[in-house]
Amino acid sequence: MKVKPTFLLAILLLSNFIYAQDQADDKGDSLVIRSIFDEALMNGESYSHLNYLCKKIGMRITGSQAAEDAVVWSKSVVKEYGVDSVYVQSVEAEHWVRGDKELVAISDEGILPLHACALGGSVGTDGVLEADVVEVSGIEELKAYGVGELEGKIVLLNEPMDKKMINTFNAYGACVSQRYSGASEAAKRGAVAVLVRSLTTLTDVFPHTGSMGYENGVTRIPAAALATQDADVLHRYIDSLGTVKVIMNLNCYTSDRVVNTYNLIAEVKGSEHPDQIIVFGAHIDSWDKGEGAHDDGAGVVQCMEVLRLFNKMGLKPKNTIRMVLYMNEENGNRGGKTYAENAKAIDENHICAIESDRGGFSPRGFSIDGTDSQQIALANFHEILEPYGLHYFKKGYGGVDIGPLKREENRVNENLFLLGLYPDSQRYFDYHHSADDVFENVNQRELELGGASMAAMLYLVDKYWYLFSE
Amino acid sequence: MKVKPTFLLAILLLSNFIYAQDQADDKGDSLVIRSIFDEALMNGESYSHLNYLCKKIGMRITGSQAAEDAVVWSKSVVKEYGVDSVYVQSVEAEHWVRGDKELVAISDEGILPLHACALGGSVGTDGVLEADVVEVSGIEELKAYGVGELEGKIVLLNEPMDKKMINTFNAYGACVSQRYSGASEAAKRGAVAVLVRSLTTLTDVFPHTGSMGYENGVTRIPAAALATQDADVLHRYIDSLGTVKVIMNLNCYTSDRVVNTYNLIAEVKGSEHPDQIIVFGAHIDSWDKGEGAHDDGAGVVQCMEVLRLFNKMGLKPKNTIRMVLYMNEENGNRGGKTYAENAKAIDENHICAIESDRGGFSPRGFSIDGTDSQQIALANFHEILEPYGLHYFKKGYGGVDIGPLKREENRVNENLFLLGLYPDSQRYFDYHHSADDVFENVNQRELELGGASMAAMLYLVDKYWYLFSE
Repeated sequence: MKVKPTFLLAILLLSNFIYAQDQADDKGDSLVIRSIFDEALMNGESYSHLNYLCKKIGMRITGSQAAEDAVVWSKSVVKEYGVDSVYVQSVEAEHWVRGDKELVAISDEGILPLHACALGGSVGTDGVLEADVVEVSGIEELKAYGVGELEGKIVLLNEPMDKKMINTFNAYGACVSQRYSGASEAAKRGAVAVLVRSLTTLTDVFPHTGSMGYENGVTRIPAAALATQDADVLHRYIDSLGTVKVIMNLNCYTSDRVVNTYNLIAEVKGSEHPDQIIVFGAHIDSWDKGEGAHDDGAGVVQCMEVLRLFNKMGLKPKNTIRMVLYMNEENGNRGGKTYAENAKAIDENHICAIESDRGGFSPRGFSIDGTDSQQIALANFHEILEPYGLHYFKKGYGGVDIGPLKREENRVNENLFLLGLYPDSQRYFDYHHSADDVFENVNQRELELGGASMAAMLYLVDKYWYLFSE
Repeated sequence: MKVKPTFLLAILLLSNFIYAQDQADDKGDSLVIRSIFDEALMNGESYSHLNYLCKKIGMRITGSQAAEDAVVWSKSVVKEYGVDSVYVQSVEAEHWVRGDKELVAISDEGILPLHACALGGSVGTDGVLEADVVEVSGIEELKAYGVGELEGKIVLLNEPMDKKMINTFNAYGACVSQRYSGASEAAKRGAVAVLVRSLTTLTDVFPHTGSMGYENGVTRIPAAALATQDADVLHRYIDSLGTVKVIMNLNCYTSDRVVNTYNLIAEVKGSEHPDQIIVFGAHIDSWDKGEGAHDDGAGVVQCMEVLRLFNKMGLKPKNTIRMVLYMNEENGNRGGKTYAENAKAIDENHICAIESDRGGFSPRGFSIDGTDSQQIALANFHEILEPYGLHYFKKGYGGVDIGPLKREENRVNENLFLLGLYPDSQRYFDYHHSADDVFENVNQRELELGGASMAAMLYLVDKYWYLFSE
């Protein structure tokens, strides 16, 4: 509750200084942003696009026909949006296949099937596997076991997301390692498979899948996500019976052949600084459960809407603005990496990258991966964006797809900063990576406000780009 | 985008001044508020209570058995929450009854039934009524007709909610007069009934009911809400056919006998200022469509949760805190009026009234109906509440139920200020007053965060009540 006068004063003076030169145009900016939101809310196309993407194309895991269809479709849509060019960029990615059979069941007394599915990247079980289950409360408890102490066991990693964290992404970040690294840590100790509690704050019957990886030199064992309700059931079985057997039958595998796939890119050349690029995007692939509605169909259609809004309103960017719909964010991030590596190779000067990949929920602001002074520059947009419910302009993550652009090995411009659209996070993990991530769970107004927020931010960053390079 | 240094400086100095005396306790407040949120998110009871209220008790319009059941049930729950007293307060209210038959249909070529229902307070049609429809774009266009110019017509008031307004309550406020006053304005011009476009930003098939009133001395004609999709259909019929006939058959009526019903009141005596009352509440009645989940089951269970949280955490208020679950907010507000009139009669000193009646959505702050200096005092809580997503502390409406307390004729303490919980508004009117306002459309975390926000605000206002009385 304490007010920190020096800090406030600093912000005050700084803000005033920075904006002195631009105040004359305040009114104009307000009107542009008001028009962006009006157009998005009255004539927005993102919701009907999301309907098409979810219902006509559907889930679009890397390597699927639907993923390719989504690229073709989005290209056909955005080429009508007055862009100077639209093209695909080749991406080579691993091809993970779920296979046709997924069974995880308690096998002690008859067969009690559990709601489960393989984690993305997992090897299969090579026939039916049956073993006793050892439950651990999370990755740390697992690591406390010695080599060989879990010989022949199936490990249940049962750490729940911490509901106390207000931003659910923080709760996700705090326990996602059990999903990503659980298999190798268990294998080092002799385990033959892992079951991982789904990463959702709900108690539900949907397994929430997601990516996992194997450590080099460690035996690759199968890994499956278990619905939270089923993880609780299994926990109670273990509690009362002491030891419980589970059978698993997973046919998933990673193909020997890579997938040749694509990022979709559309751009409008800058009128003053065509060689300075502001990239904004989302990922067009999804998991193979549900329809990838919030993750990240929402981001895809919001980015397409940004192009439509700029075109409809005749906004001419000073810098080149470029939309990228990245392939393969979910299991490899080859789209984001390929884009960044290519940008480095041809020495492209990216000044800002923006991503929408936190669901189509009511937007609250943007997180910024940049310097202190870039954060202060961003916070200057607070007053003009606050009427639209945008109040959050803090340091934070940009996005998985745009992350590689800022890595040391790829970065061309040292001043590059990343922005991530920051929607309300409360419902995101209800749907995340599950069969419940469907169109019906996206609210039209919330989706549209997110797209308009992206467009407004792009407009401001483009116009006041120099504030971020000082 | 312009920074206004004088304003900021004023806030800065003022804030600093006000809090100088309390800074020592900042840490303690932070911990208390953190614990409130932790408890609500980890062990909250509001969601299961809402389930009970919606599924076991159901819709609870004034005069229904369910409304009485809800009072009895809530009393039985909160008496376990360590309150000093819990009691009912008699409320006399009008008894409006929907009746068993509701038909609105286009009757030009066969019968095309429309999704419609009587507005609360409407008279019935006294048998089947059939007439040509005249469409108006809203209440203003209706008023442009002269006396007798709508003789024998049914008027369709078809003003849509303005989707451009970011806060949907503003859009609601801008056109709710067509629902409330449409019938009398039409009757003055000779009309025999009105159909009112439902007040929702969606295009859906649910009629969204709500209250309407009759002007004294004007013929009382029936009024029905039409689902937005059906209003659009009727509009197109009129457009293409020129004139369209509609039949209506509504059996609704207002009973000659008043309902004897109750507010539910529970309080904890203040340790230092027992005669100073901070009242917080919600309304326990609902419309007879859906389950009154967001409106206002959410507010009811959040207020009950506030009592539980105070009790569980051993918080002892300085002032008397009193929960009131008001009856009859939806069609008469007799609960709120009775409470205020009684408070005036016995000269009770209310220093603050808080209401939750904007749905169980992700909370963003509180609106305040008070003076400039009270708003500034409130804004001082920003820093301590911001980690919970609460950022909005502006002038605005308190709530329908608590409004009468602040009216000239009832006010005891001139410094009384009202606070309304301010959740994200984007989805509220999707469900409002319709059959879709059901438990399934309430998100557990969003609901729980709202309850915790109410408790945190009550804690702060109670502790720092004197800041608002200067």
